[in-house]
Amino acid sequence: MFSQKVVDNLRNSSAIRAMFEEGARLKREFGEANVFDFSLGNPDPEPPERTLAALRELVEKSPRGLHGYMNNAGYADVREKIAAQLSRMGGTPLTEDNVVMTCGAGGALNVILKALLNPGEEVIIFSPFFVEYKFYTENHGGVPVIVPSRESGFLPDLDALEARINAKTKAVILNTPNNPTGVAYPRELLAGMESVLQKKGGQYNTVIYLISDEPYRDIVYDGVRVPCVLEIFQNALIGYSFSKSLSLPGERIGYVAASGRIEDCRTLCDALVFANRTLGFVNAPSLFQRLIAESLDDKVDINIYQERRDLLYGHLTGLGFSCVKPGGAFYLFPKSPLPDTAAFKQMALKHKIILVPGNGFGCPEYFRLAYCVSTETIRNSLPAFTALAKEAGL
Amino acid sequence: MFSQKVVDNLRNSSAIRAMFEEGARLKREFGEANVFDFSLGNPDPEPPERTLAALRELVEKSPRGLHGYMNNAGYADVREKIAAQLSRMGGTPLTEDNVVMTCGAGGALNVILKALLNPGEEVIIFSPFFVEYKFYTENHGGVPVIVPSRESGFLPDLDALEARINAKTKAVILNTPNNPTGVAYPRELLAGMESVLQKKGGQYNTVIYLISDEPYRDIVYDGVRVPCVLEIFQNALIGYSFSKSLSLPGERIGYVAASGRIEDCRTLCDALVFANRTLGFVNAPSLFQRLIAESLDDKVDINIYQERRDLLYGHLTGLGFSCVKPGGAFYLFPKSPLPDTAAFKQMALKHKIILVPGNGFGCPEYFRLAYCVSTETIRNSLPAFTALAKEAGL
Repeated sequence: MFSQKVVDNLRNSSAIRAMFEEGARLKREFGEANVFDFSLGNPDPEPPERTLAALRELVEKSPRGLHGYMNNAGYADVREKIAAQLSRMGGTPLTEDNVVMTCGAGGALNVILKALLNPGEEVIIFSPFFVEYKFYTENHGGVPVIVPSRESGFLPDLDALEARINAKTKAVILNTPNNPTGVAYPRELLAGMESVLQKKGGQYNTVIYLISDEPYRDIVYDGVRVPCVLEIFQNALIGYSFSKSLSLPGERIGYVAASGRIEDCRTLCDALVFANRTLGFVNAPSLFQRLIAESLDDKVDINIYQERRDLLYGHLTGLGFSCVKPGGAFYLFPKSPLPDTAAFKQMALKHKIILVPGNGFGCPEYFRLAYCVSTETIRNSLPAFTALAKEAGL
Repeated sequence: MFSQKVVDNLRNSSAIRAMFEEGARLKREFGEANVFDFSLGNPDPEPPERTLAALRELVEKSPRGLHGYMNNAGYADVREKIAAQLSRMGGTPLTEDNVVMTCGAGGALNVILKALLNPGEEVIIFSPFFVEYKFYTENHGGVPVIVPSRESGFLPDLDALEARINAKTKAVILNTPNNPTGVAYPRELLAGMESVLQKKGGQYNTVIYLISDEPYRDIVYDGVRVPCVLEIFQNALIGYSFSKSLSLPGERIGYVAASGRIEDCRTLCDALVFANRTLGFVNAPSLFQRLIAESLDDKVDINIYQERRDLLYGHLTGLGFSCVKPGGAFYLFPKSPLPDTAAFKQMALKHKIILVPGNGFGCPEYFRLAYCVSTETIRNSLPAFTALAKEAGL
């Protein structure tokens, strides 16, 4: 009766919903503080004080038209500032015409895929992957093609990538630092990836676009630096979000940036603006565009996340969990100590730990912990993990 | 190289872009105040003072999590308030589960169409229509079917509607008060429409949904009351936006409401939330959801618009333009005095009047004037209209 595809997807995601409901039940029964909910990537720190002050000032001054429409691409001066920042990072000159303000990275990726894809064209996604990439690709008639990462270290496997590229390959989605693994890809790997894309594109006489989903670009530890894809890939498009770097996930503010090195970039940028308009986004929220112009150099305190990572990663590996040490983002992706991850998830619930099994991320033998919860919650959860490990036979 | 469909659409919309560029050129040459730009539906009044005060207070207090994620459907308490308001208006009980907060009405319509449509299903659109409906329908694999309104009065033609319904008809889009005509449809017409939908749905053993696009619901004049579609149609979905009623168009805040009388409404509402999430909206902007909870009874001063309508409508009809008197919204849709509307548009430009030819709205013999510009601009434009009418031979 309704969209059959959507209804089918609802059925498949009912397991996740069941988990949320179980979590809510636990919280009602035992109190919020006694349930260790690692299921959601909802940043716990408040936005930086400078950002909040700039927001107060904007709203206080309330200049005429603050909440009005602007060009579907967003305010030109905001885009110009972002272009200048990316030009410094990427070493290739960008102008405001290369930037489209979007409703977060989710909006950015849909806008990019709408602008790029023809029916049946393929989009390569490395597993483990952010659950939504498959939906985003299918929204616009594309076909998701999953290429497994190497299990040790969760880095993309370039041989596997090369083997899966064909004449229909339109794009590769990159996500570094990665959700759900937290792994940040080294520059050499990205350079190798570009070689593969250039080689295979040349072979098929096609252009293979690199779509870089970068909500975690600024959430990195131990001096890790995420290389700018504009520097490395000729045909790069960035989908950025301020959700994590400024702790503004509910406000839906981000952007698309298209490399000036893309052939016929002018048409592509027009297509991005058209997609932003006709997908119903119309424009990115206006007040928060204005805020971004004032906050481009602000960032939440990364040390908070690093402390939590160290605490949780240290404890889990000490208990015998097998887990790659994340260089960024705020996720751990350990291997399930039981062959049946669903059974392990149920076992964790008994210890009031809520985790997400890896099957939604394309890696059913693993599970995800989002450690963007308070340090106190993490500290309080450690004995529960100890008991869980014991019960799981670690 | 990019999406062929998007690139084709860009080509077709290059005429509108050329017009905007011509307008920008005129403003640079003669100064903003001397160009009469009636092309855009960007509300000119600022938001109500009470709404702005509530926004200042929210940002000042800045409660923890104000900018965070919430359920993809939106904050439950905000949805509950909207459900209560609609229950009062529509006489059918709604709960927060029937409401999904969206990025404006553009977001709402895409979410509805994504949740409803299977490939090749048809969506009926009455001409003249809001340009984006065709794109929104095609985004989700639907086929737009244009049914012309009666030329006298621009009311939907129910015989024509009945003749175009077949087994593939999934939905009808309603837009009252209408963009571009400003016409508000009387209750009897809507009741007649429901009879047609019920009769044909019964005949084909299908459900035909009524999608009501209501950004102008609260912008009505002369005591006109827009009937609540929930009262009249069994299978109604509302796409609402606060863009016009609160003059917040850039902030992208609105909602979908689904009638509780829809069969299997629970699944439909789950599908709406899923669509909101996977289309990349994720959720409606959080700060403005909170603001809506405080501003549900606020409204911009409609008298401002009514004064402008009276001024412009009176002057144009006095000059001999043929135009239906609008009962709402902020558009006039007069007939072009020249058979070639493009030529008339060029003629208007010589008088520094920017108008939009009707072909984009499916009625090439007409043109649209958006009178959401300052009363002073309208007053200053009157001599230009007089000169234009004379040149056009009225």
